Amino acid sequence: MQLKEIGEFGFIERFKPWFGDLLGSDITGIGDDCAILPMNDEEELVVTTDLLMENIHFLRDAITPNQLGYKSLAVNLSDIAAMGATPIRSFLSIAIPKEIEIEFLDAFMLGYRKISAKYATPLLGGDTTKSAKDLAINVCVIGKCRKGTARRRSMAQAGDIIYVTGNLGDSAAGLGLILNAANKSPDAQYLIDKHHQPEPRINEGQFLATQHAVHAMMDISDGIASDLYHILKASGKSAEINLDLLPHSDAFTKIVGKYNWNASELAVAGGEDYELLFTVDKECSDQLKSDFEKQFGKPLFPIGVIAEGTGIITWQSNGKSISMGKAGFNHFL
Amino acid sequence: MQLKEIGEFGFIERFKPWFGDLLGSDITGIGDDCAILPMNDEEELVVTTDLLMENIHFLRDAITPNQLGYKSLAVNLSDIAAMGATPIRSFLSIAIPKEIEIEFLDAFMLGYRKISAKYATPLLGGDTTKSAKDLAINVCVIGKCRKGTARRRSMAQAGDIIYVTGNLGDSAAGLGLILNAANKSPDAQYLIDKHHQPEPRINEGQFLATQHAVHAMMDISDGIASDLYHILKASGKSAEINLDLLPHSDAFTKIVGKYNWNASELAVAGGEDYELLFTVDKECSDQLKSDFEKQFGKPLFPIGVIAEGTGIITWQSNGKSISMGKAGFNHFL
Repeated sequence: MQLKEIGEFGFIERFKPWFGDLLGSDITGIGDDCAILPMNDEEELVVTTDLLMENIHFLRDAITPNQLGYKSLAVNLSDIAAMGATPIRSFLSIAIPKEIEIEFLDAFMLGYRKISAKYATPLLGGDTTKSAKDLAINVCVIGKCRKGTARRRSMAQAGDIIYVTGNLGDSAAGLGLILNAANKSPDAQYLIDKHHQPEPRINEGQFLATQHAVHAMMDISDGIASDLYHILKASGKSAEINLDLLPHSDAFTKIVGKYNWNASELAVAGGEDYELLFTVDKECSDQLKSDFEKQFGKPLFPIGVIAEGTGIITWQSNGKSISMGKAGFNHFL
Repeated sequence: MQLKEIGEFGFIERFKPWFGDLLGSDITGIGDDCAILPMNDEEELVVTTDLLMENIHFLRDAITPNQLGYKSLAVNLSDIAAMGATPIRSFLSIAIPKEIEIEFLDAFMLGYRKISAKYATPLLGGDTTKSAKDLAINVCVIGKCRKGTARRRSMAQAGDIIYVTGNLGDSAAGLGLILNAANKSPDAQYLIDKHHQPEPRINEGQFLATQHAVHAMMDISDGIASDLYHILKASGKSAEINLDLLPHSDAFTKIVGKYNWNASELAVAGGEDYELLFTVDKECSDQLKSDFEKQFGKPLFPIGVIAEGTGIITWQSNGKSISMGKAGFNHFL
């Protein structure tokens, strides 16, 4: 049997039970943006790791080495943000094909250093080795948070308003431009840069974790069709999403119109936006939205509601609606 | 400029200063088997990560998937052992080429689970993704130790006796057999298994960390010519090693004789033995050796002494001796 028949999540579900009995009952095991470990009386540790492979996650000729260094740490910091935690240290493993020049590696490390300094997450160790073919980059980030404040995927409650912190689809449109179009307009460059150098919502995540009204939270790495499904599955809930409420950048709207791309598909199934997706107690929703906007000088976007049910997302647009599980979104569009 | 001109350690030296100012003065930065982080009043955390790449660190057709899973965690546990710490949690990132079957992955995860259970180090998270060509495996292990007890490379003192916990060269001879010989004898299989399924010296490391007489410690991953040099550089010392004292297995001696391989070269520069290399206050050396043997029912092997100096290793054998830095060992043999 090949991996594609059960998928990566199917593989994880397969071996997860083999490790369950090795864990104490007070420990969060496999299955959230970060693992949570005890630290001391006031704090907990959160840990995340992401592996970026050449020709799967990036094309060496399309991304600059500086952006690649930045992005390698950024996607991990995004997982820390999703817990509402503060990143403290990072570890970098890199497997380097022999034709790569030191100048490439210097630029990579300077990009890594830039975001490392921005979010006070120094590099503390790692592994440097050879690769037979593809450049491989694994980053592990350790963060901390006040005990009991980490936001998990399992915390969504029926009636919660579903929010995102920013525009959806920019990164997927940027990838479309890299792969299919020779467009050098400022709008195209904006979207390509969003794909190559995403910004983790560390500050936003930390603020949201101080708000009792914020329940489940995760970051948008695979697209909300997949990411929201994880929240629903972990929380035992369903959801209704209004596609007409999804926030888009002006650049996205213009480029999508120009190439006649499907905006909803890019926004919902494209992924790599690294905004935060979270659910909020409906009684406190307006107040939270207003407090967030005061704090950050930018809006929050309500896109739907959590409902009773078991892992079904109902997508609404222009008065039409359809309900389906995780895999079905593409058939709707 | 290409990486091979400065090597992997040259690359690390290049970017290390860029991160120094991001670290507090109380934190151990890049450059030991593990990084050390504050945890609470009694304990510190140690963290290590290793990236194994197909066709660099292993051949998919030579090692069984079960052994590969075991080894992926074992080489990281060996770094934890080198600090004298206790492993507590592991994180696995794996990039999987499309032709790999689920049965391979199941066997891999069962090998990983076997050693995970043996040393009480459950898998807590990670990343599963596709690879365009080579199987890539990154493991990160978090351990803990009593505050101030972690053994660093910088702790060697002049006069210390240098010890190793077990035989040297088995793994390198095993690799030689995999690459060059079709020998299926029990001796050959013993050495190949030592290469494919090394045993981390967790229990030995923990015992040694309780002994005040034990100063610097590290694990033997690259071979003592390179590994000892790291201790000497970090400690600002030199060393004398008696090649005639290096411990060898019977299988090693037989196979090396049969193929007329250079035993000292395999033992000193071959690497991947994952025994512990450590230095001991000479006044307490005999007592420690005897206590260790009582505790573990196996001997410790003194192989040389630490001397004043700056990173020079003097190798002695059959009354001959020669002094050199890190790179020179192969020219001596």
